[in-house]
Amino acid sequence: MASYSVVPLNKLIEQFERLPGVGRKSARRLAFYVLSLGDEEVNELINTIKTAHDKIKRCNICQTFSDTELCNVCEDTSRDKTTICVVETPRDVMAFERTHEYRGVYHVLHGLISPVDGIGPEELTIAPLLSRLGEVGEVIMATNPTVEGEATAMYIARLIKPLNIRVTRLALGIPVGGNLEYADEVTLYRALEGRRTI
Amino acid sequence: MASYSVVPLNKLIEQFERLPGVGRKSARRLAFYVLSLGDEEVNELINTIKTAHDKIKRCNICQTFSDTELCNVCEDTSRDKTTICVVETPRDVMAFERTHEYRGVYHVLHGLISPVDGIGPEELTIAPLLSRLGEVGEVIMATNPTVEGEATAMYIARLIKPLNIRVTRLALGIPVGGNLEYADEVTLYRALEGRRTI
Repeated sequence: MASYSVVPLNKLIEQFERLPGVGRKSARRLAFYVLSLGDEEVNELINTIKTAHDKIKRCNICQTFSDTELCNVCEDTSRDKTTICVVETPRDVMAFERTHEYRGVYHVLHGLISPVDGIGPEELTIAPLLSRLGEVGEVIMATNPTVEGEATAMYIARLIKPLNIRVTRLALGIPVGGNLEYADEVTLYRALEGRRTI
Repeated sequence: MASYSVVPLNKLIEQFERLPGVGRKSARRLAFYVLSLGDEEVNELINTIKTAHDKIKRCNICQTFSDTELCNVCEDTSRDKTTICVVETPRDVMAFERTHEYRGVYHVLHGLISPVDGIGPEELTIAPLLSRLGEVGEVIMATNPTVEGEATAMYIARLIKPLNIRVTRLALGIPVGGNLEYADEVTLYRALEGRRTI
């Protein structure tokens, strides 16, 4: 007995299943949604994907995603070019920008040093970072507080410190709105260690 | 001060936000994932969407999604053509097929009667259903047990019963693995009402 099966539909579901955070059920829902769209809507979806993928390259200075030679942060004369915040991905740039507080510029590494995954320092954008340190007074190492993030921050800090540039690291502690009771011991210890006079 | 912004990226995030079950954070994750893909992978994604949308039409008999004139259930001579299971969407066909128990055929309404949304019986595939009842002995009304699902089932049942065809409705009750304590009172009442001798 043949079971219901539509090859192009199965392929579409399989494609969607490869997307991050999309399981089998969500993939099915997305596939049926695509089939429910009109011709114009599907073309818009396809063209938006194509345009984004074709046009977005890396900023010549900070290496974040940009559809122009320089991203609009590097191009902006009102941003403080003497402070560079070093992050892993363009998503981290977006996260800092959402705070509306940071006035410096960025440098995107596009990865972290991870010997297990065969990613060495030469895979990251460390050379272009070192080449732009001329007028810089502070480099904020803002990689994630994970093993790889810490190792990468330490590696880069060791390269920059001899140049007499201040290298800082993001504060670790209890997240705002967090609960002491549920904080893991390492975080709690770091929060205690980093305590400030009020 | 300019904030980080890449127009084609923002457009991609907006597109993904329109997908069902995708919020702002998931849309961002999907957009960055697309940017991380190679040219070949993006083309594969785009072509799969395009092919599925272009090729998949409705089965001439049961109206479910199919890339051929007849879906493979309607084409299969070993399926029991005298029993029709009437469902709202092709997703419901997939759900029944996953049970591997149903041997009859289907009819997809592509919607439910809903006066609030301006959907009347003529919007559904009721005419092609009535035109295929010649040899049929049983019609199982398998729309969801919601107000619209019940109303649609009752409406169609009233059209079919005069033809001396058995019309049935799915059993309502406690889901397998469910918990009596958490069942709503209507479900519990229906389960009691539908009790069977063991």
